[in-house]
Amino acid sequence: MNFEGINIPQKLVPNNYLQLGLEAQRVKQRHVKELLEKRKLPENGWRDEEIEELVHQLAALDSNNFAHNVGLGEREARIACRLVARRHYNFGHGIGRSGDLLEAQPKAAGSTLLAALTNALLFELLQMLGMHSCRGCFLVPMATGMTLMLCLQALRKRRPNAKYVLWSRIDQKSCFKAITAAGLQPIVIPCLLLEQEQSLITDCEKFKEKIEELGADSILCLYTTTSCFAPRNSDNIVAIAKLAKSNSLPHLVNNAYGLQVAAISGQLEKAQRVGRIDYFVQSTDKNLLVPVGGAIVASSDEQLLQHLASCYAGRASSSQTLDVFMTLLSLGCSGYQSLLVQRQQRYQCLKQRLQQFAKEHNETVPQMADNHISLALTLGTLTSCPGGRNIVELGAMLHTRGISGVRVVPVAQLKSIDGYEFKHFGAHHDLLEVPYLTVAASLGITCPDIDKFFEVLEKCWTQFNKTTDKQ
Amino acid sequence: MNFEGINIPQKLVPNNYLQLGLEAQRVKQRHVKELLEKRKLPENGWRDEEIEELVHQLAALDSNNFAHNVGLGEREARIACRLVARRHYNFGHGIGRSGDLLEAQPKAAGSTLLAALTNALLFELLQMLGMHSCRGCFLVPMATGMTLMLCLQALRKRRPNAKYVLWSRIDQKSCFKAITAAGLQPIVIPCLLLEQEQSLITDCEKFKEKIEELGADSILCLYTTTSCFAPRNSDNIVAIAKLAKSNSLPHLVNNAYGLQVAAISGQLEKAQRVGRIDYFVQSTDKNLLVPVGGAIVASSDEQLLQHLASCYAGRASSSQTLDVFMTLLSLGCSGYQSLLVQRQQRYQCLKQRLQQFAKEHNETVPQMADNHISLALTLGTLTSCPGGRNIVELGAMLHTRGISGVRVVPVAQLKSIDGYEFKHFGAHHDLLEVPYLTVAASLGITCPDIDKFFEVLEKCWTQFNKTTDKQ
Amino acid sequence: MNFEGINIPQKLVPNNYLQLGLEAQRVKQRHVKELLEKRKLPENGWRDEEIEELVHQLAALDSNNFAHNVGLGEREARIACRLVARRHYNFGHGIGRSGDLLEAQPKAAGSTLLAALTNALLFELLQMLGMHSCRGCFLVPMATGMTLMLCLQALRKRRPNAKYVLWSRIDQKSCFKAITAAGLQPIVIPCLLLEQEQSLITDCEKFKEKIEELGADSILCLYTTTSCFAPRNSDNIVAIAKLAKSNSLPHLVNNAYGLQVAAISGQLEKAQRVGRIDYFVQSTDKNLLVPVGGAIVASSDEQLLQHLASCYAGRASSSQTLDVFMTLLSLGCSGYQSLLVQRQQRYQCLKQRLQQFAKEHNETVPQMADNHISLALTLGTLTSCPGGRNIVELGAMLHTRGISGVRVVPVAQLKSIDGYEFKHFGAHHDLLEVPYLTVAASLGITCPDIDKFFEVLEKCWTQFNKTTDKQ
Amino acid sequence: MNFEGINIPQKLVPNNYLQLGLEAQRVKQRHVKELLEKRKLPENGWRDEEIEELVHQLAALDSNNFAHNVGLGEREARIACRLVARRHYNFGHGIGRSGDLLEAQPKAAGSTLLAALTNALLFELLQMLGMHSCRGCFLVPMATGMTLMLCLQALRKRRPNAKYVLWSRIDQKSCFKAITAAGLQPIVIPCLLLEQEQSLITDCEKFKEKIEELGADSILCLYTTTSCFAPRNSDNIVAIAKLAKSNSLPHLVNNAYGLQVAAISGQLEKAQRVGRIDYFVQSTDKNLLVPVGGAIVASSDEQLLQHLASCYAGRASSSQTLDVFMTLLSLGCSGYQSLLVQRQQRYQCLKQRLQQFAKEHNETVPQMADNHISLALTLGTLTSCPGGRNIVELGAMLHTRGISGVRVVPVAQLKSIDGYEFKHFGAHHDLLEVPYLTVAASLGITCPDIDKFFEVLEKCWTQFNKTTDKQ
Repeated sequence: MNFEGINIPQKLVPNNYLQLGLEAQRVKQRHVKELLEKRKLPENGWRDEEIEELVHQLAALDSNNFAHNVGLGEREARIACRLVARRHYNFGHGIGRSGDLLEAQPKAAGSTLLAALTNALLFELLQMLGMHSCRGCFLVPMATGMTLMLCLQALRKRRPNAKYVLWSRIDQKSCFKAITAAGLQPIVIPCLLLEQEQSLITDCEKFKEKIEELGADSILCLYTTTSCFAPRNSDNIVAIAKLAKSNSLPHLVNNAYGLQVAAISGQLEKAQRVGRIDYFVQSTDKNLLVPVGGAIVASSDEQLLQHLASCYAGRASSSQTLDVFMTLLSLGCSGYQSLLVQRQQRYQCLKQRLQQFAKEHNETVPQMADNHISLALTLGTLTSCPGGRNIVELGAMLHTRGISGVRVVPVAQLKSIDGYEFKHFGAHHDLLEVPYLTVAASLGITCPDIDKFFEVLEKCWTQFNKTTDKQ
Repeated sequence: MNFEGINIPQKLVPNNYLQLGLEAQRVKQRHVKELLEKRKLPENGWRDEEIEELVHQLAALDSNNFAHNVGLGEREARIACRLVARRHYNFGHGIGRSGDLLEAQPKAAGSTLLAALTNALLFELLQMLGMHSCRGCFLVPMATGMTLMLCLQALRKRRPNAKYVLWSRIDQKSCFKAITAAGLQPIVIPCLLLEQEQSLITDCEKFKEKIEELGADSILCLYTTTSCFAPRNSDNIVAIAKLAKSNSLPHLVNNAYGLQVAAISGQLEKAQRVGRIDYFVQSTDKNLLVPVGGAIVASSDEQLLQHLASCYAGRASSSQTLDVFMTLLSLGCSGYQSLLVQRQQRYQCLKQRLQQFAKEHNETVPQMADNHISLALTLGTLTSCPGGRNIVELGAMLHTRGISGVRVVPVAQLKSIDGYEFKHFGAHHDLLEVPYLTVAASLGITCPDIDKFFEVLEKCWTQFNKTTDKQ
Repeated sequence: MNFEGINIPQKLVPNNYLQLGLEAQRVKQRHVKELLEKRKLPENGWRDEEIEELVHQLAALDSNNFAHNVGLGEREARIACRLVARRHYNFGHGIGRSGDLLEAQPKAAGSTLLAALTNALLFELLQMLGMHSCRGCFLVPMATGMTLMLCLQALRKRRPNAKYVLWSRIDQKSCFKAITAAGLQPIVIPCLLLEQEQSLITDCEKFKEKIEELGADSILCLYTTTSCFAPRNSDNIVAIAKLAKSNSLPHLVNNAYGLQVAAISGQLEKAQRVGRIDYFVQSTDKNLLVPVGGAIVASSDEQLLQHLASCYAGRASSSQTLDVFMTLLSLGCSGYQSLLVQRQQRYQCLKQRLQQFAKEHNETVPQMADNHISLALTLGTLTSCPGGRNIVELGAMLHTRGISGVRVVPVAQLKSIDGYEFKHFGAHHDLLEVPYLTVAASLGITCPDIDKFFEVLEKCWTQFNKTTDKQ
Repeated sequence: MNFEGINIPQKLVPNNYLQLGLEAQRVKQRHVKELLEKRKLPENGWRDEEIEELVHQLAALDSNNFAHNVGLGEREARIACRLVARRHYNFGHGIGRSGDLLEAQPKAAGSTLLAALTNALLFELLQMLGMHSCRGCFLVPMATGMTLMLCLQALRKRRPNAKYVLWSRIDQKSCFKAITAAGLQPIVIPCLLLEQEQSLITDCEKFKEKIEELGADSILCLYTTTSCFAPRNSDNIVAIAKLAKSNSLPHLVNNAYGLQVAAISGQLEKAQRVGRIDYFVQSTDKNLLVPVGGAIVASSDEQLLQHLASCYAGRASSSQTLDVFMTLLSLGCSGYQSLLVQRQQRYQCLKQRLQQFAKEHNETVPQMADNHISLALTLGTLTSCPGGRNIVELGAMLHTRGISGVRVVPVAQLKSIDGYEFKHFGAHHDLLEVPYLTVAASLGITCPDIDKFFEVLEKCWTQFNKTTDKQ
């Protein structure tokens, strides 16, 4: 709906006043035209009203929102609770079609357009981040773990006889479970410990050995991870990509929260140029600050993406798409760029203050060349006294005081996942001697957050020591 | 914003799917066109999404919502709290201009259009209700009492030397205070008691006498009331209108909740044809089911309305206008008509059951030929026993049990308002002998409401009697 | 937040007025207490305000909504776009934990509570529908197809060496793709055609034969479908359940939109009692009228459900949970029951009128003892004339006129899905001779919908015949 | 509703996770308790969710929102359109009672509490601004003009025989119309022109003379204005307050947008201490950035306020109250303070740049000791050429380019308002020789606004000169 072509009587409003208003609408209309025709992420974010107007317009293209629609099917996107209808802007049909996430829906031109446009904008975003070798991407309405599983399933359809997945160990449950859920067999490649830096890197040699040992034909893919908790570094994806290419092996990259780190994007671009990455997967919640539930799969090969989409059984929620669409319009290029810059600055700040804290308390901050999000602090002095308090209580103390997201990694935690045992689970490797904690500077962290953290940490540290002394 | 003139790529959505959606939008666009060009109340109510879309479009015509507006004035409709902005759909400029409620605002074409359109739709509504002699109306963003005061002030500007207002007594404070607030002198004309019916009617003779006694020149206007609590009838506005005409005296009618009663609308039409009514005023909350705060002033003389609008000092809230606009679009002609029909039916039901109740308890329901909303039930048997409980406690008992709006009128309540004394205040006349209660069947009342009322009344009645017996 | 324990000064509001208000709040509080303590679906639906209040209260328990939360993790549920935050009521953490959909989240007590409560209410709903043998259920935030795939994956973890899935043919792509997506091998069991009724039933004998032929150990599970398009009947799940039990084989039931049909619920209950069903899966959108994107998995074995939940890799969207939660509270038991009753009545009406139409046009409505949603109408007379118009155009004609959901099934459509060929795809069997259309009476269909459908069908029928005659 | 006293089963959520959430709720609850018990404006603004929660809780105390309310009255706050209900958070009863804006409503404890609390918070705000002599204030749901009229009416009730209002001329229509609307007679006291500064000040002598001339008994009140367009200064309210006191005359101050200027607040405080002010009135939209429609009346005498409230005929809209309430909670003390500081800085910036511009273009910026919002710039050089373009077109040029709020005051504009003639209307005095424009730095103005203004002004100036030269 708009006022073009409507002859609004002078009696209602003087024409000269009206014209100024209509001119302002035309500017808005040009923005919409540009968005739809060129599919470009707007330079500056849109205002809430503009975003909602477009979203409503899109929803109005779906048949359940036609005034005189008569539904004789088994699924007519009727919505019983009006609060639910309202929060979904009356979108009800979801995205995709029985066997393909990227297929258009005859009943739902608006949902189709929403999904296609969102994918186009995400592609723009990746380009903006420097990933020029990337040829396409799309949003999968499942979180990273399940989306990685979907990628593994898609790869299996192309390599039905391969069953091994070579996986550089990272102690995060869901990316490991993606392998077992798909009914595949993980081959765990432990990380290498850099003695001096006290940090962990990819054991590329071991990958090579395993490929030779098992034979490339029996291997479904190589599976690496970029963003991760300290003191593990981002995997050496360039080296693994080369290895994948030379062995004609698929390569899957878990880039969970890597879009927010320029260095990782650079590595991904390089790896695609000189080696092989079939799919790289990133979480929408961590990289775009939307609620949990979506992931972006990108590839330098459009056909691989089409294949992946066709492996998704049935239609899917459009809720995640809507969140991402609104967020991208709301931020615009400049908004997202400034989020990135701020995060980078605050990461530096967090790092410096952590090193300072470590110095003052005779602890260490492991050095990592390839981790620009997460930091670790050893907790050696706190546990030196035998029979002392359990170090994990430090985490609980912080949590109770409003600090969330700090992980305390104790020594000697053994975990079994789907029959596979992991020693020192949480530490990414078998040789941990000193417990530590990790903190991360992720998108949206603020300076007062950092101040408050050190204030609370200082207090808890002192209190922990006191209590331990008494015992 | 809409999709006409935008070349949406096939890649985003197949054209044949899209066309069905666009066609549905064109239907909607035709509705908007019709509304704005013909200013007709739609036959059927619009859906929420359509209403909000139009409201947003209108707000977007105001300068505070232009993307690049630069405000150098003292009032730029900036809104500090986004929740406030949201609930007003970003309307901030109000309606009217420094000295005229109907004037257009250069900065706010949308607010101007909203107000003008709402007034046009209200006019349609009055026409639909049969008031063909009415020539115009507009919404005043003040409730009935203050709007009546505004009318009195406007009349005074035309008759600066007249100071008396001849007022047919009705025991509702605000319509009386409208006179004193304006600095005028009320002349109270008591109602006549019809002995047999036990109801009250206008004492037209007394009006005539007073006009002769005071002299028409000293009288500002005659002031009558239609809708009122039982056992008072609607004033005989036809007779008073004739009297006004023959004496060249203005006539102001308080039609507070009269639009919902066909008989009153009929009387208003007749009175305008055969006599004189300068302004008749009705509440928006009671007649249109919006929150308290607005009134509609109508007249058979457009110039009188212009004059009234120009007596309003300054600009005003557009919140009431927005409520009425949205409600009218939401109901449509058919929606409002069915509200009227239902009310009428439920009034009949309430009346029958009240008469039945009266019969069973040896009480009376006064008969009124000209009151089709409110009903009374005498409470004689409850108070017959001397030294019994105070009858107003019956009201409190009902209220505590979730029955609101029932008024218990005790004998001998004396009230002084601005120096004027009213005996048996609440009863509309000086000769009340038996206390009574009133109930009303107003717009939106339901059958379960009526059932529940009698159920609770029965219980309270019994309990009241018991307690009284004991004392 | 509430007003208990707050000493509101008389100066602000008289205490007796306030007490009435507070009493009303206590009633509301009792409803919440009952819901949380007894986890009972309320008899009557809640009002919008009550639902939103509870949802906000729940969200306030998540750490991202604490006023002084400091987030140092990699995922802190920050939401960049406030429109997105608003539509999710500030829920951001999703549900589940890295490796288990049913696990509680330390950072998000509210999301955890929301999910657990929703699952408890869904369980109540199943009980109300008569499924007393059911021991538990939970919502999976993926649509039916992917949820079926998840069930197959969970079964595989328990039977790693079985690879065949015996599947009673139903021509709906996503439930077939669930098998291939999981990397399993479908064994298609064609339906039996009942000559006289012209409808399709399960070929139980063939199931038996195949089990013997392949050996139970190599078979992952039997896989049946209840709700389906005419003229296929619901599978004979009781017989197949017995077969599953006697062969110690898992049995998976696709009950996509079956909750709305009492007969199907009855069959499910019986099948669980006398035979074996491991999981039965139903869509949330079709059965609960929420947007597409969720499914409910139920089982008579709680451990099987725990196992399934632990097969989901990673955390998941809570958006679907929120939709279902709000819808269940909004409807209440009585609201859902009346939706069921209305659907049943309108199905009867649709059936009668379709039979009448068939009679008038020399067509047939196949008879189905076990399909109470979908109906078919043969289109033999329309295609009798050789060289006539393509029958699928009839579907397009209907669609263009606002009728959605009618499927026209032509003869001789061949479809290949993941390498498997289906003759007459859409018809569920290989022997189709006459094209037909299907219509369904699903939850929320109205009588005017049915009237309008026949009006349009009549017109299109005539027009189709005319055009064909001319050619 | 809250979770205290509810025994949430461990099965739904682990108790330790839940406790953290509940603790956060208790903090919130303490804020509410403090607000209601101490009626203090919070130091820091509340979050949107907290504000809405409290607003919903308040609305739930009104009888129309009780689940089992049965309405038998003529006004039951039923709301027909749910969009309207939603935007008013289900408040429907308005504020006040038939004859008093400050009276509590038996049916609406929540609305009553909302209004009383808002008035208490506004009082806190005035205290914070240094007005310690102020004893009370309340919000009137009418804009400044009508509220001034209400004050005049209230004063008349106390001085029924006085009819003159001595008014220091200010060319703003609505404050003048407030006098005539009330049926009173304005005595215009022209401003004094300071030759050197080219600005205008109050002619206190003339006030004195007029009092003597007319006699204090015939004078209703003295009526001054603080905030105004340049080159008029704020009236010398201290001197006039003394005059009022010594003559026992009421004094009404129009402080329309004066709360945002510290100097004016200081003057008001001083005037109250050393002289007499009966009422001072300020707009809510201009001082608190809410939509147009409300005013705050304050006084150093609580009884005068009670009297004023009782002069309001009938009940009134609560919409303005809600806006102010939400805005105050949203800003908090610190939020409002920082708005004030920013405005002050930007006023200085605007002034400097305007002086610079004047210098470059041979124009003047009049000097005003008592106007810290509005600035003027002479337009002498633009009109020096005889037969040139009409200077008001400059205003139109600016407006068309998105600059709103700039007023161009031409020479020789004669205006008649209600029979009173004003020479050079807009200039506040009779002796204007050179046209000028005014700009204001009001709350919420930004630095980019100022930059953009000068950029556009420069362009228009050049263009205006060019066109004039050609003619």
